Amino acid sequence: MLLLDIGNTNIKIYDGKEVRRVAAHARNIPHEAFCYISVNPRLEETLHLMSHATDLAPLFDFPTHYAGIGIDRVAACYTVEDGVVVDAGSAVTVDIMKHGVHQGGFILPGIRSCKESFVNISSKLIMDPKKEISLSTLPQNTGDALLYATLKSILLMIAYHARGERIYVTGGDGVRLCEYLHNAEYDGNLVFKGMRKVIKERGRSC
Amino acid sequence: MLLLDIGNTNIKIYDGKEVRRVAAHARNIPHEAFCYISVNPRLEETLHLMSHATDLAPLFDFPTHYAGIGIDRVAACYTVEDGVVVDAGSAVTVDIMKHGVHQGGFILPGIRSCKESFVNISSKLIMDPKKEISLSTLPQNTGDALLYATLKSILLMIAYHARGERIYVTGGDGVRLCEYLHNAEYDGNLVFKGMRKVIKERGRSC
Repeated sequence: MLLLDIGNTNIKIYDGKEVRRVAAHARNIPHEAFCYISVNPRLEETLHLMSHATDLAPLFDFPTHYAGIGIDRVAACYTVEDGVVVDAGSAVTVDIMKHGVHQGGFILPGIRSCKESFVNISSKLIMDPKKEISLSTLPQNTGDALLYATLKSILLMIAYHARGERIYVTGGDGVRLCEYLHNAEYDGNLVFKGMRKVIKERGRSC
Repeated sequence: MLLLDIGNTNIKIYDGKEVRRVAAHARNIPHEAFCYISVNPRLEETLHLMSHATDLAPLFDFPTHYAGIGIDRVAACYTVEDGVVVDAGSAVTVDIMKHGVHQGGFILPGIRSCKESFVNISSKLIMDPKKEISLSTLPQNTGDALLYATLKSILLMIAYHARGERIYVTGGDGVRLCEYLHNAEYDGNLVFKGMRKVIKERGRSC
């Protein structure tokens, strides 16, 4: 079983045991059979031409009023009945699920995107995303002021919308966010979990 | 009386009645006498060489533990005894004042910076900062998801730190933020108000 989660920057390849991450180029697409979801318009045509590639997107039964939701967000939400689903990467997507139905969601800039954004505003606004920082005391210097605001604004937005419900977190910065969140669990394979569920439901094999 | 608030992008010139905004170039610095504050390192040397220019920065008596706070933030806070001071521009600075003493603060990316940040992540993430939007219902499309997250994360951060205290808002995006804030007032001249206060305190004329 080979599953591919194809983003704009990276392709994540899951062999049932491990996840391998490669740059999102046509040459990095495997030659053996695989099932995939993709939000990458540049690779769309190439993928459609490959007989050994199965697009899972049409198989998801995911009722929502949200127009144009990314299939990676759908897959991440697909195994969650009730709660908040967070995918923390270049962007931080936050989606709300209730009784298995998608209620809507929103998109924040990710931690590294904020870092770049600050430097573009002024060369003095330098943030170190890896720094340890307390979020319970007000910052007393520029570096802390940037990191505190970046983390806390994401966390407040998640907590505000969770209203005590469970929080399911995935994505590269998810572990960092979970340090500060109550009632949250990290699952780096949440998207693949959704893909496996739809494959099982539809009796497909990958 | 001519007051200049010199930023990295713009110089704001206040003649006691109106504020004029010009690009931050040496050629745009007035030839008549003026008092100024500046956070623009590129114009620093030029300003120091001008005998008709008075730097107000050394005159502020502003006790704080915050290392390296911008003089524009100091000036904006200088007339506030208790409350939260917000300057919403390229960055959104938020500072907390208690009994006339600065307690600390933080810096978020501004609304336009978030817009740029989103487009850098993906060409599909297009936000219209001017769109009217409800912040009480969950977004149901990408454009709303971006604007909702941008505005609400800034507003939640301000409200969380205000804890019922008054909120003093300035800067280009301040009016927009005030639409959604309780207990907030907009004053486009908050920085100049602080400059006028220090001039009066020190018996200077400008």
